[in-house]
Amino acid sequence: MARENLQDLYVEQLRDLHSAENQILKALPKMIGKTTHPELKSALQEHQKVTEKQVERLETIFSELGERPSGHKCVGMEGLLTEGEEALKDFEDGDVLDAAIIASAQRVEHYEMAGYGTVRSMANMLGFDKQADLLQETLNEEGEADHLLTGLAERVVNIDALKAD
Amino acid sequence: MARENLQDLYVEQLRDLHSAENQILKALPKMIGKTTHPELKSALQEHQKVTEKQVERLETIFSELGERPSGHKCVGMEGLLTEGEEALKDFEDGDVLDAAIIASAQRVEHYEMAGYGTVRSMANMLGFDKQADLLQETLNEEGEADHLLTGLAERVVNIDALKAD
Repeated sequence: MARENLQDLYVEQLRDLHSAENQILKALPKMIGKTTHPELKSALQEHQKVTEKQVERLETIFSELGERPSGHKCVGMEGLLTEGEEALKDFEDGDVLDAAIIASAQRVEHYEMAGYGTVRSMANMLGFDKQADLLQETLNEEGEADHLLTGLAERVVNIDALKAD
Repeated sequence: MARENLQDLYVEQLRDLHSAENQILKALPKMIGKTTHPELKSALQEHQKVTEKQVERLETIFSELGERPSGHKCVGMEGLLTEGEEALKDFEDGDVLDAAIIASAQRVEHYEMAGYGTVRSMANMLGFDKQADLLQETLNEEGEADHLLTGLAERVVNIDALKAD
């Protein structure tokens, strides 16, 4: 099916993110269950709650647009999460595994930062100011989550993983 | 195979990025061939040259470490590029297609930003200062490429795609 305008692309991108978020919600508990550092566990648990709110924001936008959120599977996120699962199998030491989990989670965060940056710009262009504000909120949260994970890696997890050497 | 130290994880992450970069080098010509805006075409052509240098930097690092770059397929990048190919099929209008190509390329850039941020931090932690500098150079280039694409989308491509409406 050919699609020909910016709004169609915007809706398709929103569906991609809706699928991505739902895949993340399914994958997070397994990731959380494998963590060793309590700070990492609680950061990921907190991110799960934030992700649920992000899904709600997307659904508010779909409702405003009169569009369904379903109909697009995010193949990009599927690849990222498959890669993350592989890392869980590859590493056994708790500290190194935590470092691998952070590496994987930051790839996921960055996917969302790219995706939400794209739809926020498109919402502005299309004059959907309220939607742009909602998307910006999510974009800020993703940036904060990424920053928090960098701090955890550099201040705690990588140091412990180095000692495991 | 269980791996147990930070350096093993570092090497595995470098292999992931080496695989990712090589997949990007294969995918870029097709993406470039589908672009309409000359600014986007030249930005992606420039990025191809930059990517070749980034692969060389990784190979310098592997050589210093006495490790092979092969042996890990980046499943995350595979998913992102498959998703990008789908977008090329979904959209026919040149301006909207260019907007979709930028959306896809920025997901790829962000994957690399996450990945290079991770290995740069690990290189610092492991005391591989020269390697950390090389990885920081690539990280800066990825950030610049992402910034350039955002500017192109917001100042040119999305505006044209809106007119296609």
